Amino acid sequence: MKALVYHGPGRKSLDERPRPELAAASDAIVRVTKTTICGTDLHILKGDVPTCQPGRILGHEGVGIVEAVGEGVTRFKPGDRVLISCITSCSRCDYCRRGMYSHCLDGGWVLGNAIDGTQAEFVRIPHADNSLHPIPAAADEEALVMLSDIFPTGFECGVLNGKVAPGSSVAIVGAGPIGLATLLTAQFYSPAQIIMIDLDESRLAVARAFGATGTINGAAEAAVTRVMELTDGRGADTVVEAVGIPATFELCTRLVAPGGVVANVGVHGAKADLHLEELWSRNITITTRLVDTVSTPMLLKTVAAQRLRPEQMITHRFALAQILDAYDTFAEAAQTQALKVIITP
Amino acid sequence: MKALVYHGPGRKSLDERPRPELAAASDAIVRVTKTTICGTDLHILKGDVPTCQPGRILGHEGVGIVEAVGEGVTRFKPGDRVLISCITSCSRCDYCRRGMYSHCLDGGWVLGNAIDGTQAEFVRIPHADNSLHPIPAAADEEALVMLSDIFPTGFECGVLNGKVAPGSSVAIVGAGPIGLATLLTAQFYSPAQIIMIDLDESRLAVARAFGATGTINGAAEAAVTRVMELTDGRGADTVVEAVGIPATFELCTRLVAPGGVVANVGVHGAKADLHLEELWSRNITITTRLVDTVSTPMLLKTVAAQRLRPEQMITHRFALAQILDAYDTFAEAAQTQALKVIITP
Repeated sequence: MKALVYHGPGRKSLDERPRPELAAASDAIVRVTKTTICGTDLHILKGDVPTCQPGRILGHEGVGIVEAVGEGVTRFKPGDRVLISCITSCSRCDYCRRGMYSHCLDGGWVLGNAIDGTQAEFVRIPHADNSLHPIPAAADEEALVMLSDIFPTGFECGVLNGKVAPGSSVAIVGAGPIGLATLLTAQFYSPAQIIMIDLDESRLAVARAFGATGTINGAAEAAVTRVMELTDGRGADTVVEAVGIPATFELCTRLVAPGGVVANVGVHGAKADLHLEELWSRNITITTRLVDTVSTPMLLKTVAAQRLRPEQMITHRFALAQILDAYDTFAEAAQTQALKVIITP
Repeated sequence: MKALVYHGPGRKSLDERPRPELAAASDAIVRVTKTTICGTDLHILKGDVPTCQPGRILGHEGVGIVEAVGEGVTRFKPGDRVLISCITSCSRCDYCRRGMYSHCLDGGWVLGNAIDGTQAEFVRIPHADNSLHPIPAAADEEALVMLSDIFPTGFECGVLNGKVAPGSSVAIVGAGPIGLATLLTAQFYSPAQIIMIDLDESRLAVARAFGATGTINGAAEAAVTRVMELTDGRGADTVVEAVGIPATFELCTRLVAPGGVVANVGVHGAKADLHLEELWSRNITITTRLVDTVSTPMLLKTVAAQRLRPEQMITHRFALAQILDAYDTFAEAAQTQALKVIITP
């Protein structure tokens, strides 16, 4: 089969690889019908993710049709249409029982990282009963690819951890796909203000179309000044970090109101300064989280109810044969205005 | 009257000062019967607290007898025995209505900081109805001095923010009065383990006597190794920072289990490194808080029920005339083994 293979920092190619086979009773083999590229894949290609070794098929998002299941799989059978979770979880370890699937002792984020991923014609999914979700009959498959990772990530790591509440103020630093997914799912809770901060005017225009009440195109000092103006000098109740560099994290800690939360969503490769000499008395909370995907069933219902329209995020489409072009288009988002690209094997 | 006055970094003296007078309808004048010295007073004397200017009477803890009240005070009358909260709060601003008294727009931590404090024969208490608590008839006054600041601080900033829960594991870095107050109030929630970490063996002996299930006398690497051994390699569910320097804060972020909380209690004068490259995926929470003293009425009940014995913390007693000796005794705790010193005007 064809598969996008990582060959070490800066190197990838579309290779011919053997089709995956069942390796455990809880496995399923899924024929991938739609997949996509994540910002995290670009992090891997920069060499930022040491758990992902050369030779790995990338990709942790997608939908498909079950091709085969191990004898222990009870929820799925060949022919079923499924949504693949970016998080593999056994459902029975201490962390899974607490809903912390991301820390599953026999899973977590392994797909397209420690095991081969979804940017291929077929993929092996361990612990299939807990790591796949049935796709409702009438659903738009393309839209649901957005529920493998980015919508649960924005919702769980940003909105839930950030305690977005009716009438509250929210500031989101970074208007990429994850920041925009946070913006869309924050609206479930009717905050009074959602302010998006980015340096890319076209993404801020998308944010306004997606429901942002205000946008700020500017560096840290300008952003602090403007957020304080918009919040009576107090700062935002929820501040979401959706970039993943020290400067944006440090900005978030300057934007948060007393009693508020800085919810980190970004994937970081370096330490940041934490100004405890200013923050120790401000009654704030900082959270970090790798998405658990516990909210995926709920998000599927919001899509079915047309309360969430994930297809808004799709800007480009490619065949698997053109996946190298798809990577270029996604990586050069400032020029191409790409948000999420759909790849069809 | 006699009062301990701050005269700038490193300088203090016991001076003759005029008795305070009522300045607003919501004020009370309290004759101080017992007060104490806080680690925060030593921070002020180091010049770490710019809001506290030379000429200020120090002290934000104490009990006393109401001498006079303004016409707007309804809960207290002359002759009432009262506990003074370290936090002054108006009860009606946005922050007070959310229980965030520490951020009261007309109060917060002002006593012995922005206004004259309790290390004196008399003190003026603004917003007396919300900033004083009635003392039950049978109560031990000395013990209740511990409820002005250190017990609410350990409980709210450490135990509540840290989400201490039955069966959980708790690590407390710093076995000074605040760390010990956290240790004692953490036991309200029946955690399975409370591990105290300090470099002073005599304080660790006190911690064991106060209910610590384990103590660690060692630097960062040794502490990390030992906490991991004691928690099956996972770390502690709650980690409390009760020192206030970058090294101990950074240690706390290495001790916390996935899904756990680092609850900062320490007063910090410098920034710390936050290793987001390791923490972004660990599903942890970091909290900061200046005590709100919302728990004081509850803590008074635990004392009355003998569920909490704050007098355990008292090691030395002085008359107000000897307060300079009391400061020396408190500041040289490694030699004197002082925890809290009681001062009687």
